[in-house]
Amino acid sequence: MTRILIVNSNTTDSVTARIGAAARAVAPPGVEVEAVSAPYGLPLIVTRADWLVAGPATLAALSARRGGYDAAVIACFGDPGLDAAKELLEVPVLGISEAAFHAAAMLGRRFAVVSFTAALRPMFEDCLDHHGLRARCCGFRMGPPFSGDPGRVAEERRDLLITLCREAVEQDGAEVVILAGGPLAGLAPVLQPHLPVPLVDGTQAAVRLAVALAGLAPTGSSRARTLSGYDADLTRLYAGRA
Amino acid sequence: MTRILIVNSNTTDSVTARIGAAARAVAPPGVEVEAVSAPYGLPLIVTRADWLVAGPATLAALSARRGGYDAAVIACFGDPGLDAAKELLEVPVLGISEAAFHAAAMLGRRFAVVSFTAALRPMFEDCLDHHGLRARCCGFRMGPPFSGDPGRVAEERRDLLITLCREAVEQDGAEVVILAGGPLAGLAPVLQPHLPVPLVDGTQAAVRLAVALAGLAPTGSSRARTLSGYDADLTRLYAGRA
Amino acid sequence: MTRILIVNSNTTDSVTARIGAAARAVAPPGVEVEAVSAPYGLPLIVTRADWLVAGPATLAALSARRGGYDAAVIACFGDPGLDAAKELLEVPVLGISEAAFHAAAMLGRRFAVVSFTAALRPMFEDCLDHHGLRARCCGFRMGPPFSGDPGRVAEERRDLLITLCREAVEQDGAEVVILAGGPLAGLAPVLQPHLPVPLVDGTQAAVRLAVALAGLAPTGSSRARTLSGYDADLTRLYAGRA
Amino acid sequence: MTRILIVNSNTTDSVTARIGAAARAVAPPGVEVEAVSAPYGLPLIVTRADWLVAGPATLAALSARRGGYDAAVIACFGDPGLDAAKELLEVPVLGISEAAFHAAAMLGRRFAVVSFTAALRPMFEDCLDHHGLRARCCGFRMGPPFSGDPGRVAEERRDLLITLCREAVEQDGAEVVILAGGPLAGLAPVLQPHLPVPLVDGTQAAVRLAVALAGLAPTGSSRARTLSGYDADLTRLYAGRA
Amino acid sequence: MTRILIVNSNTTDSVTARIGAAARAVAPPGVEVEAVSAPYGLPLIVTRADWLVAGPATLAALSARRGGYDAAVIACFGDPGLDAAKELLEVPVLGISEAAFHAAAMLGRRFAVVSFTAALRPMFEDCLDHHGLRARCCGFRMGPPFSGDPGRVAEERRDLLITLCREAVEQDGAEVVILAGGPLAGLAPVLQPHLPVPLVDGTQAAVRLAVALAGLAPTGSSRARTLSGYDADLTRLYAGRA
Amino acid sequence: MTRILIVNSNTTDSVTARIGAAARAVAPPGVEVEAVSAPYGLPLIVTRADWLVAGPATLAALSARRGGYDAAVIACFGDPGLDAAKELLEVPVLGISEAAFHAAAMLGRRFAVVSFTAALRPMFEDCLDHHGLRARCCGFRMGPPFSGDPGRVAEERRDLLITLCREAVEQDGAEVVILAGGPLAGLAPVLQPHLPVPLVDGTQAAVRLAVALAGLAPTGSSRARTLSGYDADLTRLYAGRA
Repeated sequence: MTRILIVNSNTTDSVTARIGAAARAVAPPGVEVEAVSAPYGLPLIVTRADWLVAGPATLAALSARRGGYDAAVIACFGDPGLDAAKELLEVPVLGISEAAFHAAAMLGRRFAVVSFTAALRPMFEDCLDHHGLRARCCGFRMGPPFSGDPGRVAEERRDLLITLCREAVEQDGAEVVILAGGPLAGLAPVLQPHLPVPLVDGTQAAVRLAVALAGLAPTGSSRARTLSGYDADLTRLYAGRA
Repeated sequence: MTRILIVNSNTTDSVTARIGAAARAVAPPGVEVEAVSAPYGLPLIVTRADWLVAGPATLAALSARRGGYDAAVIACFGDPGLDAAKELLEVPVLGISEAAFHAAAMLGRRFAVVSFTAALRPMFEDCLDHHGLRARCCGFRMGPPFSGDPGRVAEERRDLLITLCREAVEQDGAEVVILAGGPLAGLAPVLQPHLPVPLVDGTQAAVRLAVALAGLAPTGSSRARTLSGYDADLTRLYAGRA
Repeated sequence: MTRILIVNSNTTDSVTARIGAAARAVAPPGVEVEAVSAPYGLPLIVTRADWLVAGPATLAALSARRGGYDAAVIACFGDPGLDAAKELLEVPVLGISEAAFHAAAMLGRRFAVVSFTAALRPMFEDCLDHHGLRARCCGFRMGPPFSGDPGRVAEERRDLLITLCREAVEQDGAEVVILAGGPLAGLAPVLQPHLPVPLVDGTQAAVRLAVALAGLAPTGSSRARTLSGYDADLTRLYAGRA
Repeated sequence: MTRILIVNSNTTDSVTARIGAAARAVAPPGVEVEAVSAPYGLPLIVTRADWLVAGPATLAALSARRGGYDAAVIACFGDPGLDAAKELLEVPVLGISEAAFHAAAMLGRRFAVVSFTAALRPMFEDCLDHHGLRARCCGFRMGPPFSGDPGRVAEERRDLLITLCREAVEQDGAEVVILAGGPLAGLAPVLQPHLPVPLVDGTQAAVRLAVALAGLAPTGSSRARTLSGYDADLTRLYAGRA
Repeated sequence: MTRILIVNSNTTDSVTARIGAAARAVAPPGVEVEAVSAPYGLPLIVTRADWLVAGPATLAALSARRGGYDAAVIACFGDPGLDAAKELLEVPVLGISEAAFHAAAMLGRRFAVVSFTAALRPMFEDCLDHHGLRARCCGFRMGPPFSGDPGRVAEERRDLLITLCREAVEQDGAEVVILAGGPLAGLAPVLQPHLPVPLVDGTQAAVRLAVALAGLAPTGSSRARTLSGYDADLTRLYAGRA
Repeated sequence: MTRILIVNSNTTDSVTARIGAAARAVAPPGVEVEAVSAPYGLPLIVTRADWLVAGPATLAALSARRGGYDAAVIACFGDPGLDAAKELLEVPVLGISEAAFHAAAMLGRRFAVVSFTAALRPMFEDCLDHHGLRARCCGFRMGPPFSGDPGRVAEERRDLLITLCREAVEQDGAEVVILAGGPLAGLAPVLQPHLPVPLVDGTQAAVRLAVALAGLAPTGSSRARTLSGYDADLTRLYAGRA
C-alpha cells in the first residue's frame, strides 16, 4: 500500500476537505490519501510574505506525520516550503504547481495557464520560472478582477473559463491547459468534456506523480541541528528524529 | 489493469529484451508491460539522421498495437517520433529522456547528467533544450571516448561512473543524477547504494510516469489523411483507424 | 556554374512549380535551379507528425539527385529533414524558414513574422526556437482562422497582410518583415512597394544563401550503414554511395 | 539623519558584530547603522531549509524596530525573507547578495563571483537567477572543500583568494569581482590593493545602496491580517501596526 | 564633499538645465551636481546611429572635466558612451537607463516601463537586454504616436500616463514603474501621489546610485594610446592624461 | 556587376590589404571588391572604447564611397558602427563577426569559436549575445596570453590552433568552427584540410553573404539632420545626401 500525505498550506479546514476529495478521486487502488491543514499561519495564501510564513507551517505538518507516508503533496499554488521539504524528508515531496507544470509538459508541447483573475498571474509566472518551465508555456488567459466569494467563483465564472480555455487552444496553440488557482481545484474533470485538449488539475496531477515517484528518494542523512523559536514538530524535523 | 507498451526505436531485439526487464522491475502490481522493437530502421540510433528515420518506424510500432495499451514509452534516448506520437495517439506517450529530465527535476532542484562517453553530450543537450529543462541541469560529467562493446561498458566503466556521479554531487551541487545513454539502462539501481543522491534511469522513470498519466489524454479527433510511401501500420495510423 | 536543388517536402507538384518559379526569379546568372517534389508522404505538411514523415521523403529526393547539385534548399516551412540532410550530404543544405530567419536578422535588428492565419504561429515559434533566433523576433502578426483555398489566400488577404506588416513596423518596431507560410511564397516582391522595410520571402532568401554557401562544406566521411524499411534512394544515402 | 537597520539572519552575535563593523566603515556622515541578530532560528544558514526558517525570524527583527529606520539590509547571503520584507515594510529593504550583484553590474559589464569553497556555488547560482542577473556573471572561481573554522578562512585562504580573483580577471575577463560568502565579509578592502579591478563586498554594497534608495518607497497600505503560530513581532507586522 | 558630473548626451542646453534641476532635487547635503551638454553631435538622440555618434561626444564632455568629479551620470536614455566611459575613467559612471533598471529591480520584483509613445519601446528593450534585466520587466505600457512638442508631452499626456501606470500595476502586476523617456524627466515625483507603487525617474535614480558608488572604482591603469580624428578632449582621454 | 565595399575599421593599411586579398579570393565572377581603411581613429581595435570611436570612422568611410557599392562589409571583429550603418545606408551592410556566426549556424547546429588567445573571449561573447546566437555556440577554445607580433601569430600558433579545433570537434561536439580574431583572417582555407568540419573565416563569410543579400534592402527615407563636430563625410551621411 502506498500512503500519500497532502498538506494544505493554509489553515482553512473546508479547503483541506475539498482538496482531499479531489485527491481521492484519482488515487489508484492500493493508495491511501490523508489531507491535513497547516497547524498555524494564515487562512489564505496570497502574497510572497504569505508564502514565506506558510513554509515552516507546512514543514511542521509534514514533520508531525513523518514516517507515516511514502510521498507527500503540498497543496497550495506557489508550493510553500517545497524546496526545504525536499531537503529535509526522506520521501518525495511534490507541490501542486510543480506537478501541474510537469504533467502538462509531458502531455503536450505547449501548455496554457487559465485562471479566473489576472491578479494571480504574477504568482504563476514566478512559479513557472522557479521550476524552469517558462519556455513550455504558450500564454496566460485570465479573467477580470474578482471580488466575490472564492468558493463560488468556479461556478459563477464557469462559462468564462470555458471561453478562456478555447481561446488558449485556438489563438495560442495550447495543446494542454492548466486550470490554476486554489478555488478551481477539482474543476478540470467537470470542464474536460467541453474542450478538445487535456485539462490539468494541480492537486490531481500531484497525487498521480507522487504515487509514481514514491520509493525513488534514497534515505537522507542530514545531521541533527538545533532550531529555536519554532513549534515542536518543526524543531524535531531539524533535530533529525522521525 | 493498466497496459504499458514500450517501443525500442531500434531494431535490436536483445536491447529490447533488456529494456523490457528494466521496465517490469518497476511496474506496480496491476500494470502489464510489453516491449517491442522498431519494425524497421537501424540497429543503433546515434546521429540526428538516425533519430529522424527511427521516428516513422517507432510510430509504426505504436500503430501496430493501437488500442492495446493505456500509455506508451519510447525507449531511445533522444525520443524519436515522440512529438508525432503525442499528436496521433489517444493515450499518453512518453520518451525516456523526457521522463528522466522531468523525474529528476521533481526529485531535486539541480540534476546532473552522467554518461560513459562525451560523444553523447551534444544529443543530451539537444534533448534538454527541446524539453525546456536546460536551466535545471547543473552539469554534465562524461567519460572519455569509448570504442569497445556497448553491451559491456556499464560493467567496464562502473567505477568511472561512480566517480563521475560523486564529482557531480560534490563539485556541481547535483541533488539528483541521471544515468544517461542506452547501454546504461538498468544500471541506476545497481549504483544507487554507492551514492547519496537519487539516481534516475530513463526507462524506469518513463514507466512510472506513464502509469501516472494513463487516462489523462482525452480521445483525439484528428481527421483521416492519406499517407503514401510508408508501411501499412503507419499509413493506417494516419488514416485514423485504430 | 552553380546548381541548386530545391525539394518541396510535400507531394503537390503545383506547389513545387510555384516554388521553382519564385526561386528562379532571384537566381543570379550562372546559377541553375531545379525544383522537385517529395517522392512520397503527404500533399500538405501541417502538423508535427507531418513534419516527421516528410523528413525521410525529403532525404530520398535529395539522395536521388545526389552529386547533381552544389547546394540544396528544403522548401517547406518547418524545414523537415534539415538536420539529417546537413549530416548526410557533402554540400550545404538550407531550409526556407532557417534562411528567412537568418536573412532577416542580417537585414535589421528586429524582425517580425507576418502570416495569414494564427494557426501557423506555434510552428513558426518552434522553428525560431530550433534555430536559436527567438530573441531577434519582435513579434507575430497573424490573420484570423482561414478555411478557404490556400492557393487564393495571398490574393484574398492581400490588404490584410499589408495592414499586418504596417502594424509590425509601427507598433512592434520591426525593421524587417518575414512573410511566412507556404501559400505566401513569392508574395514579398509584390507587397514590397507598399512597405518601408525589407520583406523577406523564405524561398528566395534560401536560394540566395545557398548560392553564397555553396562550396563551404568539406566532403563528409560518414561510414556506410544499413537502413531497412525505406525506399531505395534513402537506403542508398545511408549506405554512403553517391 | 538616515538610519539603516542591518539584520543578520542567523542568531550568532559575534557575526552580527563583525557585520556591523564592516557596515559602519562605509556609512557616510549623517548615516547611523544598527546591526541586530535574528531573534530565533539557526546559528548558521547553509541549506534551502535554513533559508526558509530564517525568513520569518528576519521579518520579526525588522518588525521589532519598525519605524526606527529609513532603509534596511538583510545581511545573509541568499537574502532570506527579502521578498516578504519588500512587501510588508514601508521602507526599502536590500539583501547583501542582491546588493552585491547590482553594484557589481553597475561597476563593470562582466563580474565574477569568488569564494573560498565550491560548496557555496549552488546557492550563489540560485541567488543570481532569482535576481535575474545570471547573464552578467562571467564565471565562478571557488576554492576546494573547507572543513576548518569559518572565522579563520579569510586569513588562511587569503593567498588562494587573491589567485582566484586574478584568474577571474585574466581568464574569464572579469571587470569586477564579488567576494562572496559570510566568512569573507569585510575582506574586500583588504585584498583590493592586490587587484586591478573593483572588489565588491556584499554588506558594504548593501549599506551604500540602502542609503541611496532611502525615501524612494511610498508608504504601503496593506490591510491588517491575522497570523497565528508566530512570535509577537511578526504577528504585529502582519496586523499592520508599526 | 562628493561631486557628480551629469552629461546630457545631446547638445540642447535647455534639456541640460532641466536635467540639472531634477538631479539637484535629490542630491543629498554635501553633494555637488554639475550638468553639461555634449560639446557636439545632435540636438536630439533618437536612432541607433544617433546613439553611436553621441558616444564620443559624451566621452569628450567627461574628459573635459576629468579630475573634477567623483562619479558621473550619462543622462540620455540608451546610455551612449557608457561602456567606453566605464573603461576609460577612474570613477564610476552610470547611465540613466542603467540606473532606472537597477533601482527599480531593487525596489520590487516586477517593474514596468511606461512612456508616452510606443516609438520608444524598441530602444527600451535594447537597453534592458544590454543590462541583462529583461526578466525583471513585467511589461511595457506606451501611449500612441506623438507628433507634438516633446517639451509639453509630460503635461499633455499626464492623465494618460497615470492610466498607463495603473494598468501596469493592476494588469501586469508591476510593483515598481519606470517613467521612461527624456521628455518625462522629473515627472515621477509629480505623479507619485496618484499611484500605489514607487515611480522611478532615471536621472534621479542615477544621481542617488552615483553618490552610493563614488569611491568604489580603483584607479585604472590603461596605457596611453594615440587617437586621431577626434577633438582634443577625447584625444587627451585616450592619451591617458587627466 | 555587384560591387562590395569592405571597410577595415582601424587605420592600418597593411591589415586592409590582407583583408582585401582574403575577400577577393572568394568573390564570385562579376563581383568587384574594394577594401579601404578607416580614415581616422585607432591603428588597432581592442577595447569597448576602441569599438565606440571606430564606429563613426567606419561610417565616414562608408559615406565617402556612398553610391559606389551594392553591399558593404565592416571588417573588424566586434562590428563597430554596424547597427548605425544598417540604419543610415540604403544597401545591406554586414559585419564579419555577424557573418561568421550566421554562416556557421547555417552550416551546422553547433559551432565553436577558436582563437589564439583567451583575451579575445569576452569580446566574442558580447558579439554572440548582440547577434542573439549564443545558444548555437557549443564552446570556446582559446590559446594562452600572447604578447608577440600579431602579424605572425597565425604562423607561430598554427599547430596549437589545429589542436584547439580538434578538441572543439571531439570534446564539444562542434560541427563547424569559426576561426576568430583579426590576425587569423585568411587562415581557415589553410587549416581546412586538417579538419573534418567546415572552418569559417569571418571576412570570407561576410563577402559571400553580402553578395547574397545585395539588392534586398529597399531605399531608405530617413530625413536630413544636422550633425556637428564630425568630419565632412559623416556629416553628409547624416544630411541625407549620397
